[in-house]
Amino acid sequence: MTTARAEVEAMDAADPLASYREQFVVADPDLIYLDGNSLGMLPRATRQRVIEVLDDDWGSHLIRSWDDRWIDLPRRVGDAIGIGLLGGASGETIVGDSTTIALYKAIAAALDARPGRRCIVIERDNFPTDRYVVESLAAQRGLDIRWIDEAGPDGVSLDDLERVLDADVAVAVLSHVDYRSAALLDLPTFTTAVHSCGALVVWDLCHSAGVVPIDLAAAGADVAVGCTYKYLNGGPGAPSYTWVRGDLLTELRQPIWGWWGRQQMFDMEQGYAPTPDMRAWLTGTPSVLSLAAIEPGVAMTVEAGVASIRRKSEALLTLAVRLYDELLGPAGFGLGTTRDPARRGSHLTLTHPEAERVTCHLIAGGIIPDFRRPDGIRLGLAPLTTRFTDVYDAARRITSV
Amino acid sequence: MTTARAEVEAMDAADPLASYREQFVVADPDLIYLDGNSLGMLPRATRQRVIEVLDDDWGSHLIRSWDDRWIDLPRRVGDAIGIGLLGGASGETIVGDSTTIALYKAIAAALDARPGRRCIVIERDNFPTDRYVVESLAAQRGLDIRWIDEAGPDGVSLDDLERVLDADVAVAVLSHVDYRSAALLDLPTFTTAVHSCGALVVWDLCHSAGVVPIDLAAAGADVAVGCTYKYLNGGPGAPSYTWVRGDLLTELRQPIWGWWGRQQMFDMEQGYAPTPDMRAWLTGTPSVLSLAAIEPGVAMTVEAGVASIRRKSEALLTLAVRLYDELLGPAGFGLGTTRDPARRGSHLTLTHPEAERVTCHLIAGGIIPDFRRPDGIRLGLAPLTTRFTDVYDAARRITSV
Repeated sequence: MTTARAEVEAMDAADPLASYREQFVVADPDLIYLDGNSLGMLPRATRQRVIEVLDDDWGSHLIRSWDDRWIDLPRRVGDAIGIGLLGGASGETIVGDSTTIALYKAIAAALDARPGRRCIVIERDNFPTDRYVVESLAAQRGLDIRWIDEAGPDGVSLDDLERVLDADVAVAVLSHVDYRSAALLDLPTFTTAVHSCGALVVWDLCHSAGVVPIDLAAAGADVAVGCTYKYLNGGPGAPSYTWVRGDLLTELRQPIWGWWGRQQMFDMEQGYAPTPDMRAWLTGTPSVLSLAAIEPGVAMTVEAGVASIRRKSEALLTLAVRLYDELLGPAGFGLGTTRDPARRGSHLTLTHPEAERVTCHLIAGGIIPDFRRPDGIRLGLAPLTTRFTDVYDAARRITSV
Repeated sequence: MTTARAEVEAMDAADPLASYREQFVVADPDLIYLDGNSLGMLPRATRQRVIEVLDDDWGSHLIRSWDDRWIDLPRRVGDAIGIGLLGGASGETIVGDSTTIALYKAIAAALDARPGRRCIVIERDNFPTDRYVVESLAAQRGLDIRWIDEAGPDGVSLDDLERVLDADVAVAVLSHVDYRSAALLDLPTFTTAVHSCGALVVWDLCHSAGVVPIDLAAAGADVAVGCTYKYLNGGPGAPSYTWVRGDLLTELRQPIWGWWGRQQMFDMEQGYAPTPDMRAWLTGTPSVLSLAAIEPGVAMTVEAGVASIRRKSEALLTLAVRLYDELLGPAGFGLGTTRDPARRGSHLTLTHPEAERVTCHLIAGGIIPDFRRPDGIRLGLAPLTTRFTDVYDAARRITSV
């Protein structure tokens, strides 16, 4: 039986999060945007906030804004994310550098905390920049990398991980949700497995924060890093966050010492001495325009509630898989994402030998997915902005390409 | 003889750069802003540019902006700075991380290019973050730091430098203009001295770029780093630039490998392989709002011309010193900046035992300098926005505090 559009329209009508879409800039009402997992849409409040930073802060208040408006932004935005979305406590999260720099610091700190251990574990499926950072640290320190083999739509299993763990592993770098398949790893289970060999775990939350419930403290995780420009709608290249479990703050020391991490930074004293709190993970002056732009999207996500967002995400994906079975599978597309709702994030990857050509056609026709080499078409379902009818219309249009 | 305000008004009337001030947001016409060397004022064009990035790029064009608007920003803004202001060639400069991260990369790359040499040279007078970064790299690698002693208003001499140079030095980290005294080092002379012992030099241009003529190629410099938020008016915490001399691009390899530095980054292949050009110095996704905000200020600086800017800067400082002799010296202030016009940048530091209290009074009264511990009041004279009458009025008000 074919799904009727009226049925899907009823899903939108019953969606408790439907009104959030009105809080975003929708420049082209006919555009179906399915790439909120690459770049989240622009919240109206963010546009306003950036203009305020331009006019009221930079333009008028000038340098004085550092004293009373900007200096705490890395911690304030960090706490908003850490407490509101990650299950962290106050003072455990900061926002500042790019995600890649944050990963470098986190992994280096973990390596320093496990001297003598000579291996870093990471998935071949992990996002490229995670892998490249690990390669640079391994090269610098003469360490070995133990790769977890590519795992397909279902993602890495506990067996996959345990096979490469032993007393020589210093740190495992894992993505909570895989950027291609959307495979979702169980935070507590995988964290416990890494700890069982005495290693530390660095979680990459780029594709999960804001759309999957996360409790880093309950999972006993060590360090987590993530970007803010996907489901958090922080804007292009917006700075990343780093969370460190409170009781590790004195043990884990990041390697790039800068004035933002020093005690009494404006004393400009001789000799680096890290602050005794999470500010020690800061390095240089953060980009204020981009940093301030993160706040409204995060606030909206916290307000909507990740539990509600997750419920809608599951419903969107369930619809997408149903339409896959009805339309896309028969049309020759493969399913690159698991069918198990509990084991996937909020995007869905279709595979097709001509995925790149199909993606170009879709974009020309007003549907924006993301092409992922070699053969993936990634549909990002961002619950605050994606409608059920978007999924329906996209599925029909993809089938007709 | 006392300088009359009418004489100073005539200087403003004859100033060929006077009209540039109209291109900036002046929220409070009565405010005398003398901290453009900490945070340059907001160009009107920048306000417009950021709103365009919000509305046209992020808001409307969404993820597609990466393809045709944003991906080249680090190189485009880099070239604008490198070619326009630093004497660099096309493709030698990129913009991306914070200044401190850029310093870390630059110094680490220089150390890797001089294996076996065990010393880093840096000034005790250097900006704190430069020193802390050097300390972190020395600690990580078990290297020694050779400090050039604090040098006072005249800055480091060639003798000061040569005293610490020998065949064990891998890299010298020097500030072109000292952040407190404004002492200006001669780029070719100091570069040649460092090279004479076989070491590399990393120049910090934070307090000179845009206000002092710079020709890195003619000086034979190796690597240079600088911020964009002072005389370039790029905005609070705007990303920094890194310049590498073209023929060193294959020899110097920065240590934090990320997807932005990889060949064909969107192929997302296994194994890091750096681009054969300056993009190899990029790491992660840059903060687009902050990065785009840099362009208008740089363009304005290039248009005005650093030679003209330097002429006005010299005239502003000459006036400031004259007023120091007439008013401020007799009132008990010391001069923390050299009297030699050829050996200073574009700010002037007054010293006073109660500098902090004086600064607070000034700010409350609508004059904004910068307090620098322990006893410095720093007057930043930014030629595109500072008027001669600002200097005059400030000097009289400081005297009366």
